[in-house]
Amino acid sequence: MKLMQFQIDDIIKTALNEDINYIDVTTDNLVDENSVSTARYVSKDDGVLCGIDAAMRVFKLLDDNAEFKILIHDGEKVKKGDIIARITCSTRALLKGERTALNIVQHMSGIATATNRCVELVKGTKASIADTRKTLPGLRALQKYAVTVGGGKNHRYNLSDCAMLKDTHLDAYGSMTGAVNALREKMGHTVKIEVEVSDLEQLREALDLGVEIIMLDNMSCEDMTEAVKITNGRAKLEASGNVTEKTIAAIAQTGVDIISLGALTHSVKAFDISMKIDK
Amino acid sequence: MKLMQFQIDDIIKTALNEDINYIDVTTDNLVDENSVSTARYVSKDDGVLCGIDAAMRVFKLLDDNAEFKILIHDGEKVKKGDIIARITCSTRALLKGERTALNIVQHMSGIATATNRCVELVKGTKASIADTRKTLPGLRALQKYAVTVGGGKNHRYNLSDCAMLKDTHLDAYGSMTGAVNALREKMGHTVKIEVEVSDLEQLREALDLGVEIIMLDNMSCEDMTEAVKITNGRAKLEASGNVTEKTIAAIAQTGVDIISLGALTHSVKAFDISMKIDK
Amino acid sequence: MKLMQFQIDDIIKTALNEDINYIDVTTDNLVDENSVSTARYVSKDDGVLCGIDAAMRVFKLLDDNAEFKILIHDGEKVKKGDIIARITCSTRALLKGERTALNIVQHMSGIATATNRCVELVKGTKASIADTRKTLPGLRALQKYAVTVGGGKNHRYNLSDCAMLKDTHLDAYGSMTGAVNALREKMGHTVKIEVEVSDLEQLREALDLGVEIIMLDNMSCEDMTEAVKITNGRAKLEASGNVTEKTIAAIAQTGVDIISLGALTHSVKAFDISMKIDK
Amino acid sequence: MKLMQFQIDDIIKTALNEDINYIDVTTDNLVDENSVSTARYVSKDDGVLCGIDAAMRVFKLLDDNAEFKILIHDGEKVKKGDIIARITCSTRALLKGERTALNIVQHMSGIATATNRCVELVKGTKASIADTRKTLPGLRALQKYAVTVGGGKNHRYNLSDCAMLKDTHLDAYGSMTGAVNALREKMGHTVKIEVEVSDLEQLREALDLGVEIIMLDNMSCEDMTEAVKITNGRAKLEASGNVTEKTIAAIAQTGVDIISLGALTHSVKAFDISMKIDK
Amino acid sequence: MKLMQFQIDDIIKTALNEDINYIDVTTDNLVDENSVSTARYVSKDDGVLCGIDAAMRVFKLLDDNAEFKILIHDGEKVKKGDIIARITCSTRALLKGERTALNIVQHMSGIATATNRCVELVKGTKASIADTRKTLPGLRALQKYAVTVGGGKNHRYNLSDCAMLKDTHLDAYGSMTGAVNALREKMGHTVKIEVEVSDLEQLREALDLGVEIIMLDNMSCEDMTEAVKITNGRAKLEASGNVTEKTIAAIAQTGVDIISLGALTHSVKAFDISMKIDK
Amino acid sequence: MKLMQFQIDDIIKTALNEDINYIDVTTDNLVDENSVSTARYVSKDDGVLCGIDAAMRVFKLLDDNAEFKILIHDGEKVKKGDIIARITCSTRALLKGERTALNIVQHMSGIATATNRCVELVKGTKASIADTRKTLPGLRALQKYAVTVGGGKNHRYNLSDCAMLKDTHLDAYGSMTGAVNALREKMGHTVKIEVEVSDLEQLREALDLGVEIIMLDNMSCEDMTEAVKITNGRAKLEASGNVTEKTIAAIAQTGVDIISLGALTHSVKAFDISMKIDK
Repeated sequence: MKLMQFQIDDIIKTALNEDINYIDVTTDNLVDENSVSTARYVSKDDGVLCGIDAAMRVFKLLDDNAEFKILIHDGEKVKKGDIIARITCSTRALLKGERTALNIVQHMSGIATATNRCVELVKGTKASIADTRKTLPGLRALQKYAVTVGGGKNHRYNLSDCAMLKDTHLDAYGSMTGAVNALREKMGHTVKIEVEVSDLEQLREALDLGVEIIMLDNMSCEDMTEAVKITNGRAKLEASGNVTEKTIAAIAQTGVDIISLGALTHSVKAFDISMKIDK
Repeated sequence: MKLMQFQIDDIIKTALNEDINYIDVTTDNLVDENSVSTARYVSKDDGVLCGIDAAMRVFKLLDDNAEFKILIHDGEKVKKGDIIARITCSTRALLKGERTALNIVQHMSGIATATNRCVELVKGTKASIADTRKTLPGLRALQKYAVTVGGGKNHRYNLSDCAMLKDTHLDAYGSMTGAVNALREKMGHTVKIEVEVSDLEQLREALDLGVEIIMLDNMSCEDMTEAVKITNGRAKLEASGNVTEKTIAAIAQTGVDIISLGALTHSVKAFDISMKIDK
Repeated sequence: MKLMQFQIDDIIKTALNEDINYIDVTTDNLVDENSVSTARYVSKDDGVLCGIDAAMRVFKLLDDNAEFKILIHDGEKVKKGDIIARITCSTRALLKGERTALNIVQHMSGIATATNRCVELVKGTKASIADTRKTLPGLRALQKYAVTVGGGKNHRYNLSDCAMLKDTHLDAYGSMTGAVNALREKMGHTVKIEVEVSDLEQLREALDLGVEIIMLDNMSCEDMTEAVKITNGRAKLEASGNVTEKTIAAIAQTGVDIISLGALTHSVKAFDISMKIDK
Repeated sequence: MKLMQFQIDDIIKTALNEDINYIDVTTDNLVDENSVSTARYVSKDDGVLCGIDAAMRVFKLLDDNAEFKILIHDGEKVKKGDIIARITCSTRALLKGERTALNIVQHMSGIATATNRCVELVKGTKASIADTRKTLPGLRALQKYAVTVGGGKNHRYNLSDCAMLKDTHLDAYGSMTGAVNALREKMGHTVKIEVEVSDLEQLREALDLGVEIIMLDNMSCEDMTEAVKITNGRAKLEASGNVTEKTIAAIAQTGVDIISLGALTHSVKAFDISMKIDK
Repeated sequence: MKLMQFQIDDIIKTALNEDINYIDVTTDNLVDENSVSTARYVSKDDGVLCGIDAAMRVFKLLDDNAEFKILIHDGEKVKKGDIIARITCSTRALLKGERTALNIVQHMSGIATATNRCVELVKGTKASIADTRKTLPGLRALQKYAVTVGGGKNHRYNLSDCAMLKDTHLDAYGSMTGAVNALREKMGHTVKIEVEVSDLEQLREALDLGVEIIMLDNMSCEDMTEAVKITNGRAKLEASGNVTEKTIAAIAQTGVDIISLGALTHSVKAFDISMKIDK
Repeated sequence: MKLMQFQIDDIIKTALNEDINYIDVTTDNLVDENSVSTARYVSKDDGVLCGIDAAMRVFKLLDDNAEFKILIHDGEKVKKGDIIARITCSTRALLKGERTALNIVQHMSGIATATNRCVELVKGTKASIADTRKTLPGLRALQKYAVTVGGGKNHRYNLSDCAMLKDTHLDAYGSMTGAVNALREKMGHTVKIEVEVSDLEQLREALDLGVEIIMLDNMSCEDMTEAVKITNGRAKLEASGNVTEKTIAAIAQTGVDIISLGALTHSVKAFDISMKIDK
């Protein structure tokens, strides 16, 4: 995984602390300390896998001797019934870590799978699928990574790395031109400016200012088609607002460069995976 | 909120650190430090509100002088267009905290709303709706709280506070009777035992052992009806496994005491709320 | 140990940070960096050992190459003069970690030993010995674990996992019956209710309500004997309040199920163990 | 209190997180959110109070509106029945924080009281009572502070702030003279050297080296009397090893400057205090 | 300050924990707990002030009743002898926080002052002064903020928010063209690409690829003048490598857009400020 | 290194979190996950090396399989062009950790080198070079360690481990004699007292009180010479205030025991080291 191991470990420890604040009253009292078992992770649905390294890491943190073999890797297609990974470790660790591991890999695979469906829906157009900052507290890195694993691209990571002028900023500053010029005076040279526009007039003002990215906010497909024509490559156009799997293909047909969806990360459907212990 | 303030603050700080690791390159460069604004939180859907205190707290942590008035409280029904809260604080804090606040209240309201739909679907039966340990890393307290706000009940919080014998434990121990007796010998007197059963024979064994709760795992409604009859009040019966909003009413009709759904917390659909700044 | 390694590590690191906030001005300046020594942990008293894994872990955190052999394990009886463990690691680590390791194993063995004395005192009765929430900040998991190692049982871990109605709750609510019914309406199905009673009339009310556990608060042995008769197995009876090693046998004779003592964890006498470096 | 508030807050939050990892299932479900109560802290024993500010702080962290009045302050004598403090805050906070507050103030008052008994026992001699590094993980600052509140003095805080040559260091280095000289070459000028000696010959060697403090390890009172004579003010003499409340007066009579006791912090007896809610 | 308060608080607490791990043995033993004093912060040099809010915050964290008035704000010129701020708080807090407060404001003002000297040296050219990632562990936000306060601009905050192709990346990938194209395929649309070039040939390749920023690495002024001509506004040109206050004016004359200096943050000279207590 | 590994790890993780809050957008997208490279650390200046273990540790935390060989160790002289260490690890880790590793080793070597220059300047006198508490937030341990590596000595680590009476304390207390006596009554026997004096009269008062260390604050060399004569070995004399590399030799000639310089840690010039990847 591209994320740093110790950052993932911190998330896993947080999850384990939530799930076992003292002992596992069932497992620690029933299962022999020296018992070792082997389990397999099995997919119960079709989709794109994501987070299996993190899931396996749960057991490593619980049992330093845990050994595993990942058969299907992040980004690969998975089908119902596929064995994703095999792990051998202390039976206690296996039972204590099961839920935490599944919670992580199911959430991340859910994101990758939904993203991939969107990517497939816009195939053949120039549109790429992007995430947003609509993520869950503490999980942004995992969620944004899962979007890329599903074939999507990352929008800005946070408020520090790209300027985005929304109507509230324009209201606060008076005019788009004034705001863009003020920003350019102050911000560093590595930062791009994105401006949110709601009609074609605003689009033209933004284009005249030479901003790098323009967000077409809740525009009709007709307007977006027109916007693409007007823009003619002078800026990247991003379609945003109420994009769903039903409307996304039509939006892509307008010729926009990026389609961003909050739902990829704020309304995730867990992808079904189960752990089975070999008998 | 029943949760401790400093625990919620830690989650908010984690989220803010993710979203603003340095400065808000747009807001901090454009908006005057002394500017103050008022905003309103508006519902864009119908449902049950949850997490509004946490959302408001975001601004308090960014601006000690923030003042707000909550008009619709956790657990109250909210309709599209309703004003949920008004907040007055530094414009910078308002813009910097907006996304973090919305991410939290939309997620929690999403859980409360979905839970409440399930509660409505089983009305008139004796079944209560319960959550599971299928929660997201770091968010269990917020998620479990949201379930109660929606009218649901909490299943065990974690592995430490209730014994739950699943097939893996029984396999590891040999027999249900042996496992239950061993557990009783070792665990404290405040802990209940729940046993997962997959057929009526196992149910009878569990009842003979006098365990407090029996989970009927993926049973048909016919079997569950029979199980209720056999049990006759000697234990709480919990229906679990592939429960959906479509099947839940029929399951409740079988007479079970509890219906638990992982989807309440692992597959949350964000509830749409927006922040509007007064001009 | 049943506790998770990384939780114990956090406690050890906290202790080491307290004890060495910069360098060990004596050891780091006098002892050669490459010097390796072997030491033995020796008991200087008779009792039940607890915490030796945690003690050894201190050295592992200071010197990744530390190697040790534990000769007497948690829960085993130990006599004055017994060698508990042998450890070979960097001499610097040995000297820097000595006090932290001893502080932990002496405290935990102190708890296990005192608990075990109580367990022996009630042998032959049906009473089990239980701890309380009267623990020291940050040490609850270690302390409660030590109680079980000494043969005792854990009372509830915290306020989240068992309902306990004390007189203050009853006062706040008006009546025991009202309070118990209200609780049952709201709390999850995995939670037991314990009610504190101070006389036999309250006991009867609690029994009528069918609560799972009843705490007999500071009752005389006569009253407790009567309480056992009245209860006749309908609830678990817990004797609590001013229990000492002198009174505990008599209390157990009344037939109560559980005797809980705060002193097991709030007034611990360190168990004497020393570290000797081989010359 | 001399300790920094945010350091104490961290300890309190750790304790509260242990005691309430989710909600207080009893209080949060039974007590009205807006209910406010007043409680008094009452001593149930005679001794020296310590930690009442920290105890009150627990409630402030749970309820920002908590108001309290401390009637007996840290370091003051307290008698059975004395009202120590009055606090008014949300009833929920009062019930949720009660145990955590009591655990802290009882532990700290236990230390202050025991220390004070020792101080009284050596009155009239030149000996002062000192603590050791035999403290509990995470609690050193609270424990060492409590010793001073009881009239004792602090030995070194940790391994970084005073050099202490024990037999293990001497063994590692070869000779006392060599070790002391090596240390002086390397350590900073603000650090004192203490040498542990077990007989009068070693004492003389240490005196010849001009070390600031000499620990008389497990010496007989006769030897210590002789040591005082030999030393004649050239170094501070510290008596250590198996000091108890029974032997301490005789040890003080030998003329030593300091008597240090691990038991002050490693074997603390909680001081009995209770919280009573006004009806 | 544009930085979030709680992030600054964390840095201050870290510093206070380093400086006072137990008590301030001088102040806490000598100064009356109720004594209040007023102090002034006085500049002992000429420059640009930065960090005074953070310095004052130190005292607020030590004494909730601290009150202060800042007379010279971040970004303002300060002369030797100027009074920067006045603060009234507990004398203990004043003495305990003095060094921590000064360490912060002296470091940040040192950065702002040095940056400002560079800004003055390039006045009249189109060059802006920028920082680098050559910052000190844990202090990046404070350091980068100080650069902007001195009139400089921020280069990328970290490795996540701007792509920068150095020779090592080009070596790893084979060719600049291949690397840039691969990056564009994978990274999000909000990220700019900067390419490091060491000669004019590489410059031309980078320009043909249309990258947004080109770093001229250790080039002679002659080559940089030529590079500006060739580029003709098609990309931002950044001069980097061994820039000093002696060479910076000449570099700016070449017409480059940005001059970045590691020394602004990796070789900071503290700016002299002192705290004087009113008698 | 004498510092504890886990303390250094915490600093490194903080630095890595600053430098890579999500992914390294360049490296993670361009460099193959399985690519392994070897790099060498090369000195670009002459001086004393410090922090190379910490620098290497950065890579170990990013890649558990990293292997390195340190050729020049902490405290050894290094010349321009010297190869300091060789490291082989994942190319991604090498590129992601490069800046963090260099930032640390350059800062620490800068301190060691500057300290060593001062040590050389006072050679032949009895003066030793000492640091101060003028350190950067979170870096005190690394900075103080680097001073010792350069041949300097550590002044007190913090406010807890040595009493230092400055004019503000004397003002707060009334008189030096009163303050010293009060301190002796309260503080532990392991703590030394240092008094700051600004003239010879104060020096005499301090000598009469028998304090261990006297700081000569901003005195002329003539006065310091006189002070040495007056003192005649009865206390350690520390010269402090505006000491620079130009004045230090003359100050040492006065016969003072210690010369302390804030600049060693508050105005560090980074020592130039670079990382080169083998092709």
